Amino acid sequence: MKEKEADVIVVGGGPAGVISAVTARRYYPDKKILVIKSVGRGVIPCGIPYMFATLEKPEDNAMSDLPLEKSNVELLVDEVTAVNRQGKTVSTKSGRELAYDKLVLAHGSEPVVPPVKGIEKKGVYPIYKDLDYLKAMKEEIRKAKSVLIIGGGFIGVEFADELAGLKGLKVYLVELLPGLLANSFDAEFGQMALAKLKAKGVEVICGEKVEELTGGDQVTGVLLSDGTRRPVEAVVLGIGARPNVKLAEAAGIDLGRGQGIWTDEYMRTSDPDIFAVGDCAGKRDFFTRKSLPVMLASTATAEARIAGANLFQLKVVRENKGTIAIYSTYVNGLVLGSAGLNEATAGKEGFDYIAGEAEAPDKHPGGIPGMVKMRVKLVFSRQSEILLGGQVSGGMSAGEVINIIGMALQKRVSATELETLQIATHPCLTAAPTMYPLVLAAQDAAGKI
Amino acid sequence: MKEKEADVIVVGGGPAGVISAVTARRYYPDKKILVIKSVGRGVIPCGIPYMFATLEKPEDNAMSDLPLEKSNVELLVDEVTAVNRQGKTVSTKSGRELAYDKLVLAHGSEPVVPPVKGIEKKGVYPIYKDLDYLKAMKEEIRKAKSVLIIGGGFIGVEFADELAGLKGLKVYLVELLPGLLANSFDAEFGQMALAKLKAKGVEVICGEKVEELTGGDQVTGVLLSDGTRRPVEAVVLGIGARPNVKLAEAAGIDLGRGQGIWTDEYMRTSDPDIFAVGDCAGKRDFFTRKSLPVMLASTATAEARIAGANLFQLKVVRENKGTIAIYSTYVNGLVLGSAGLNEATAGKEGFDYIAGEAEAPDKHPGGIPGMVKMRVKLVFSRQSEILLGGQVSGGMSAGEVINIIGMALQKRVSATELETLQIATHPCLTAAPTMYPLVLAAQDAAGKI
Repeated sequence: MKEKEADVIVVGGGPAGVISAVTARRYYPDKKILVIKSVGRGVIPCGIPYMFATLEKPEDNAMSDLPLEKSNVELLVDEVTAVNRQGKTVSTKSGRELAYDKLVLAHGSEPVVPPVKGIEKKGVYPIYKDLDYLKAMKEEIRKAKSVLIIGGGFIGVEFADELAGLKGLKVYLVELLPGLLANSFDAEFGQMALAKLKAKGVEVICGEKVEELTGGDQVTGVLLSDGTRRPVEAVVLGIGARPNVKLAEAAGIDLGRGQGIWTDEYMRTSDPDIFAVGDCAGKRDFFTRKSLPVMLASTATAEARIAGANLFQLKVVRENKGTIAIYSTYVNGLVLGSAGLNEATAGKEGFDYIAGEAEAPDKHPGGIPGMVKMRVKLVFSRQSEILLGGQVSGGMSAGEVINIIGMALQKRVSATELETLQIATHPCLTAAPTMYPLVLAAQDAAGKI
Repeated sequence: MKEKEADVIVVGGGPAGVISAVTARRYYPDKKILVIKSVGRGVIPCGIPYMFATLEKPEDNAMSDLPLEKSNVELLVDEVTAVNRQGKTVSTKSGRELAYDKLVLAHGSEPVVPPVKGIEKKGVYPIYKDLDYLKAMKEEIRKAKSVLIIGGGFIGVEFADELAGLKGLKVYLVELLPGLLANSFDAEFGQMALAKLKAKGVEVICGEKVEELTGGDQVTGVLLSDGTRRPVEAVVLGIGARPNVKLAEAAGIDLGRGQGIWTDEYMRTSDPDIFAVGDCAGKRDFFTRKSLPVMLASTATAEARIAGANLFQLKVVRENKGTIAIYSTYVNGLVLGSAGLNEATAGKEGFDYIAGEAEAPDKHPGGIPGMVKMRVKLVFSRQSEILLGGQVSGGMSAGEVINIIGMALQKRVSATELETLQIATHPCLTAAPTMYPLVLAAQDAAGKI
């Protein structure tokens, strides 16, 4: 029994869902749009680590409903339990059945909970995007004397950096791989992050596995694969997330090769009236089109803008070129950014590549207050000279430098073009025009061709 | 009488000269390269304003000879007085005659000294790129109780900001046009700069002319076109510079339409063995190819890299696409960046354009410490949707955001591409992925097409 109707139903209230709805409103002013979200009070995903010390109160990271209200989008807090494609309705936990004309699946991902002995104990926290859950987690961690973070990707690293700022809290970080941030950065950049965490007092243990979480009901310690133990009163799981595909699977929608819902270039699933965006949608690599498990709010919002515009009509050619997996992170004053392929991934993928590197002060002359060194590494195809990826480390400005690299990747810039790039430089803001690291790194690479 | 020979002679030791020589060395390892500079101790041009307070001592802004030494480039302090194209030699002030195979003119510009009554008085300072001159100027200004800056372009604005930081010094800034930074920014951005200077105690007088500098030998006051007077003990001329073309003119090299030495796409002058780069070379607009009086170290170094690579052979297709006049400036905590056309210049040029704007916190959520608002304005061709220019205001990160826009311009990005751009975002570093101002400004413009 249909009790309510909407032209567009968006399942999920995170960035992907909100931007899908808001974009749909811009392009289709007359349609009725409804967002259904399962969590009443959501949070801004990338702000989660900063709810523990940096932000004054956790509420400062709440996901606002204001953009939806402003766009005249309706909102329902409920959980969608089934998609009935035949009848074009969704069923919800509270027993509703709601009709749609177009459906957008934007219901995200679920944190991976590894099959470790003791993982079910009290004090072990997967990262859920739920304000009330995170508030409670914060209270508990603030009471603890030691915390273990499992996973040395950017979430684990950011949590370690943030929690190390809490007085009286000993922070351990355990990563299975030999270095930190190893999925997106070459080893030398991971080592910079490691040094920054160590300087802040974090005990970083790479190349080891968590064998067991010990204690009674409540976790009180950890046993590592090297046989050593640490006392821990709380555990944060930062080992990534899995696309949420249950709804789509049950509805018989194509899941592609299993890393998220399959979509075409316009974010349409195998059912032309159902779109999928964000963490629940499969990602393809920009260069190889291979499946890539990348979950970033910025990718999600780019996809949402594509879906929102093309719901009823392919309005304009908005292609989803595949993900360049572009992101930045911040560790105890050090900024790291990565986009596209690095040396390790380019090599693994079989590219004949050349890498170029440069380091220079990020302000000029070097005596300008606040100067730090910026380092840029670029990877190019040897034959075509096209940029395949870039990594940057430095101070705050590096957070936007990676976006220059991102633009260059998305527009397939060559080493020669980068070498003679016109750039804005200023003593207080950037490296010198004579030593702009992005240009010098391209030059370094071109010299090797 | 040729007393010395070099395969390549570069005239000028500023950024254009140094980068020409260093690039030539990379591409032509066996050539003998000589740089002749007239100023023994030069300075980094963009750092000049910051020699007065920000930098510990003026020497911190010295132009280093180290890059030349490292590249095995010879250096001669002397002034080139004539180019003898027939014999392929240059004559110098000290009586030398030096043979070249390829010659690079990189001898810059001269500050404009306006024909104002009293301009010859002591205490009036054109900005020369000479360390000893600037050191003496600094000493004199530090003794003064009031200083007048003539010109509200970026040099005048940066000087005003810097000098206003000196204790006990009253700063006046006079600009003929109705607003500040009016050549590169739409009025609203100039107004932001004005507010920042006022907040720092600068008296800014727009829309008025300096009629006379008064006093005896030494300037002691100014009479403005509105009839008012101010007491001033020092005057800084920040009204721009003229390309230095005397050498080229005397040698019969084509000066084009008179705004700098004419060059082809590879920075060759009308004499195929003579190149011109930097301020002395004519600039063409990226979109119209019209002559444009833009003098920026970043443009100069891009040109120098083109010339240096192509001296003996057009090595690779390195075109000089014309200048996008990209630069950034910093005024009392406010960063402003501009590239390409703004609304005013696009309109004046006859473009059918649309503008899009957006403003958002430059960190997210807004409660992250240090957050300021970032504002982006983009101008697109209405018909082709191609980006024509961008302006940005904000905190320190805006200095690299203008370089994202610069990359987009140089690769001719469309509004649609920008709307679905993949970006790296981070709470401490950038705007939110849902509200990234560059993307929202493109969306705003696209909505008006």
